[in-house]
Amino acid sequence: MSVSIPPKFNPLTGAIRALAMDAVQQANSGHPGAPMGMAEIAEVLWRRHLRHNPANPAWPDRDRFVLSNGHGSMLVYALLHLTGYDLSIDDLKNFRQLHAKTPGHPEYGYTPGVETTTGPLGQGISNAVGFALAEKVLAAEFNRPGHDIVNHHTYTFLGDGCLMEGISHEACSLAGTLGLGKLIAFWDDNGISIDGHVEGWFTDDTPKRFEAYGWHVVPHVDGHDPEAIERALLAAKAVTDKPSLICCRTVIGAGSPNKQGSHDCHGAPLGKDEIAAARAYIGWNHPPFEIPGDVYAAWNGKVRGAAFQENWERRFAKYQAEFPEMAAEFERRVIKGDLPANWEATKATYLQACRDKAENIATRKASQNAIAALVPAVPEIFGGSADLAGSNLTFVKGSKGVTKTEGGNYCYYGVREFGMTAIANGIALHGGLIPYTATFLVFSDYARNGIRMAALMKQRQIMVYTHDSIGLGEDGPTHQPVEHIPSMRIIPNLDVWRPADATETAIAWISAVDRKNGPSLLALSRQNLPTVTQNATDADIAKGGYVLAENADAQVTLIATGSEVKLALDAQAALAGEGIAARVVSMPCTNVFDRQSDEYKASVLGACKKRVAIEAAHPDFWRKYVGLHGAVVGIDRFGESAPAGQLFEMFGFTVANVVATTKALLS
Amino acid sequence: MSVSIPPKFNPLTGAIRALAMDAVQQANSGHPGAPMGMAEIAEVLWRRHLRHNPANPAWPDRDRFVLSNGHGSMLVYALLHLTGYDLSIDDLKNFRQLHAKTPGHPEYGYTPGVETTTGPLGQGISNAVGFALAEKVLAAEFNRPGHDIVNHHTYTFLGDGCLMEGISHEACSLAGTLGLGKLIAFWDDNGISIDGHVEGWFTDDTPKRFEAYGWHVVPHVDGHDPEAIERALLAAKAVTDKPSLICCRTVIGAGSPNKQGSHDCHGAPLGKDEIAAARAYIGWNHPPFEIPGDVYAAWNGKVRGAAFQENWERRFAKYQAEFPEMAAEFERRVIKGDLPANWEATKATYLQACRDKAENIATRKASQNAIAALVPAVPEIFGGSADLAGSNLTFVKGSKGVTKTEGGNYCYYGVREFGMTAIANGIALHGGLIPYTATFLVFSDYARNGIRMAALMKQRQIMVYTHDSIGLGEDGPTHQPVEHIPSMRIIPNLDVWRPADATETAIAWISAVDRKNGPSLLALSRQNLPTVTQNATDADIAKGGYVLAENADAQVTLIATGSEVKLALDAQAALAGEGIAARVVSMPCTNVFDRQSDEYKASVLGACKKRVAIEAAHPDFWRKYVGLHGAVVGIDRFGESAPAGQLFEMFGFTVANVVATTKALLS
Repeated sequence: MSVSIPPKFNPLTGAIRALAMDAVQQANSGHPGAPMGMAEIAEVLWRRHLRHNPANPAWPDRDRFVLSNGHGSMLVYALLHLTGYDLSIDDLKNFRQLHAKTPGHPEYGYTPGVETTTGPLGQGISNAVGFALAEKVLAAEFNRPGHDIVNHHTYTFLGDGCLMEGISHEACSLAGTLGLGKLIAFWDDNGISIDGHVEGWFTDDTPKRFEAYGWHVVPHVDGHDPEAIERALLAAKAVTDKPSLICCRTVIGAGSPNKQGSHDCHGAPLGKDEIAAARAYIGWNHPPFEIPGDVYAAWNGKVRGAAFQENWERRFAKYQAEFPEMAAEFERRVIKGDLPANWEATKATYLQACRDKAENIATRKASQNAIAALVPAVPEIFGGSADLAGSNLTFVKGSKGVTKTEGGNYCYYGVREFGMTAIANGIALHGGLIPYTATFLVFSDYARNGIRMAALMKQRQIMVYTHDSIGLGEDGPTHQPVEHIPSMRIIPNLDVWRPADATETAIAWISAVDRKNGPSLLALSRQNLPTVTQNATDADIAKGGYVLAENADAQVTLIATGSEVKLALDAQAALAGEGIAARVVSMPCTNVFDRQSDEYKASVLGACKKRVAIEAAHPDFWRKYVGLHGAVVGIDRFGESAPAGQLFEMFGFTVANVVATTKALLS
Repeated sequence: MSVSIPPKFNPLTGAIRALAMDAVQQANSGHPGAPMGMAEIAEVLWRRHLRHNPANPAWPDRDRFVLSNGHGSMLVYALLHLTGYDLSIDDLKNFRQLHAKTPGHPEYGYTPGVETTTGPLGQGISNAVGFALAEKVLAAEFNRPGHDIVNHHTYTFLGDGCLMEGISHEACSLAGTLGLGKLIAFWDDNGISIDGHVEGWFTDDTPKRFEAYGWHVVPHVDGHDPEAIERALLAAKAVTDKPSLICCRTVIGAGSPNKQGSHDCHGAPLGKDEIAAARAYIGWNHPPFEIPGDVYAAWNGKVRGAAFQENWERRFAKYQAEFPEMAAEFERRVIKGDLPANWEATKATYLQACRDKAENIATRKASQNAIAALVPAVPEIFGGSADLAGSNLTFVKGSKGVTKTEGGNYCYYGVREFGMTAIANGIALHGGLIPYTATFLVFSDYARNGIRMAALMKQRQIMVYTHDSIGLGEDGPTHQPVEHIPSMRIIPNLDVWRPADATETAIAWISAVDRKNGPSLLALSRQNLPTVTQNATDADIAKGGYVLAENADAQVTLIATGSEVKLALDAQAALAGEGIAARVVSMPCTNVFDRQSDEYKASVLGACKKRVAIEAAHPDFWRKYVGLHGAVVGIDRFGESAPAGQLFEMFGFTVANVVATTKALLS
């Protein structure tokens, strides 16, 4: 198809192009190609359709916008600035500088109006699926006939890179199945990725691919023709039972007469001469970072935004009058993000019940019990598993799966670990829901960058990862985590819990729900574990590490987690039989433990400096606590396929080996 | 469409079904559903089409078979046993037992005839793409008119789980672009995944999806009708310029009268009663693990296999006569897997050239120089990058991209990190090529389970991961690795190199090529680094850690890697100015260092027990070397978007901070 090049002169799109090329030039770093290529699409969406309020980026029923091709960050910064968000021209001049509100990629929490952090390709579109899923779920829950208090679109821009990434398949396939009709994606089909023209590595028939997912596809749109874009967008909005993909043929860097259409303008400044030529070419005669008043006026979205919000507030007031309890719940969950008023009582009751039952169960089962107890009290908890509900034990009596036509509090994510995790990030970012997700711990590998993004964005996603060690047995090394637990403890801002029994599991769950500024990961056993916390206080467990069995005369401290805590206790008894006094520390969450006071930490680690750590995972991590002169009973190789008992024996997770290791250390 | 249920009685497929249900029952663990559901497909492929030689699983021109739905491992074990591989009935009785040749999932190296380890869904089909790509590349390189010495198919079975995984999109999209006509995939379309009937989470029009990738699709095949399967397979083989997907509608667990078609038979033993009922239903009257002689005879593939191989050997002898040098090269690379005869000389020459130039360049650039030097001498080196050739610096003068119609020694993988890594595993497993792959280090997250699989399978994939720290600057925290280097050092059998200059980079490359039993990962800088190894020997560097600057009076040892080695040297000088004697250790590969003798390691770490580690990554890992009473200058939070120099300053990678840290430690 033909594309309108040069794009028809328009000072509205000229402002975007000028800001993008000037800011990248000033930073001497960045990506002008996407903002310049998508200027017309952005203008049509942001000026004519996007229901947002620049004066209040937190207005709950705003449309969400996600720039999945996050390297084009200057596009969203330009749009936020032009429409009137708290993002000044000086902020744009500071593009990519330390502590600026305009970092190299859009970072959630840095810039008002940026809904999610993007840059790792494919995750923005997946977050967008999460936003749209949250909207659907909350609408089903809160809306009443004549009262559509949850009713907004999610729009996303994405490029070829996002479409090549596997996660786009996972998220978009599920979006089709779930019929997320308020999700509208614009594909920036410019035929260029970093290595050049994509024909050599990307020849998908993308419209056909998305039709195969059950999407409504608008193909062959001239991405530089505002009226064509407008028509496509109206068509997309008219289809309410399917997500829409609008395929916009564009020219990367459109407006740069000598570099447009080539990857030269993808990820580097255009250079002063080419910027001057571009100014002439697009008819933009203003100096860098100067926007005429009439252009600002035409872009300003504050009046429309205030009207959108007021209209919604009026409608919400009516809703409040008719459904006061639901309105209060909406305010609590969606607007304030508070936990329920009875949350403290819920926790106390459930913990007591755990103590009373003292069940010897797998911690995955203990997690299911926790979910079953928490879901009725905290209805914003929204579950799911990557096709392992029966193994992860994530589905409970109060769970209801979302379908194409109905809401619910559970998503059957299918075998899509990474997509699930990024979708859940979108759900958490949307507000009103607390997502938990699940798979086998070893397949955290598939989801890993999504986990990282949850941590980076400080989002409360709770990851229920079961089958946490060789203890899963016969499925063998591909399914047995070895390096995973230690490797995730060092993702900044992620709390990794490996509870030893049902009570520790309950406290891990509660800590995860309580934690508003970051994700928590629960590594849970497949096999049954005995109760070990009879003499531990809830408060101590919640500190992440605590003395489970003190011994004033101790010559050695045994530190263990999860399934190995009982082994440590048994070894302690065996050592006592040989006249060796040992104490036992349970360390369900090293990350939380590390945040305790130095005094507390020293008291737990103990006065005796000889320490033995026991964990069915890679040993190196524990040097942090046992030092060079301690010992670690761990696993520094891949597992094997065999019944679990034989594997624990083979890898030295026996009382005899812990005793021998301890004696060797003390000798 | 209708499916033939119950499948027509056939003792050939009966043997598969019986072995699968009996072995799972005996192990009390495993997955009978897929082997029983795919028995007819397996019989048609393995008895009528697969060109293999059970007596010689290493015959180079054999067809490759990959069970991407690896949980159905009893299917491939049954097939290998029945066709005559060295896998006895006792091996099948030992299914899933410790040290058996029949682990829970197919494990490369454990079982003759298993071409790759599968189980992590979606990776088998991606390995298969790698096998087919290797075949195409080697055929283009070695075949001559009338001499098709490389000419084999790659067949793979996959299920819904593989198709939901994002990696299937990455690998299959690329397979379509590259026109891998000898790749034939059978989709086990049984409509069931672990959570139940897939309609709630997987509604793709899969034939349409694969057509969108440019595949030849054979839809609507009755997977229990051998003649329908036969026709489909002939159609697939007839299309030589596109990969083929044969869509087989099947009933999971077909042959189990009360459980077939339900996820009850997916991942658990059928139980004694149901097995008895199944025996009656399929007309199989033999006790467990007893196969009648005529059934064995009908399955035995040794005679056909010997003929296949002999035919090939005859043809290879003619090739040898006509092209003796190429035949010798084929024998070296594909049959023996040896490095070139002049490899030692190549290394020495290149290392000397590095020393002579002593360039102050980024280690990514040093890596490119190494590739450029090695490729002409080691033509089996096969490169690629996930759309970052110009950033990873992986394309060199001797590189030629594979296209749909031509071979080459480089693959433009597109933005497909995980797919690339799993494809490269397939290439390495195929033999004849040494794959290197590339992306930004932070996006190793996307590829992580593929990296793990390379390590688990002991495959020589070389990962060229650039932009290794906050030193990449403005792209910000989404692009800045923090936890990645330490988190990958603990993947068993992976060597992680972080070289400090061009010579260390050259040695990392050489070590990676020399390492036949595992993958190596090179973490490389974006920014220029000065030469620091003037006084280090190549032999010491190759040990992974060595004393770069000795000091007999040292009070402290500074240990650093990569870009921080120069900082350690500068700090050493500054400390000397304050009267503090320090020594400096460069530790480019802790994994290789850990394999050295205790004596050597002690000599490097030094007699003085005060140690400071310096690395722009998460600090905890270094406690392994510095202990509780050492210090680490590291980064335990996410990065920021800003020019690199400012970030190093902000995060304390300055001489002043290293000096202050060291003095605090010594005080």
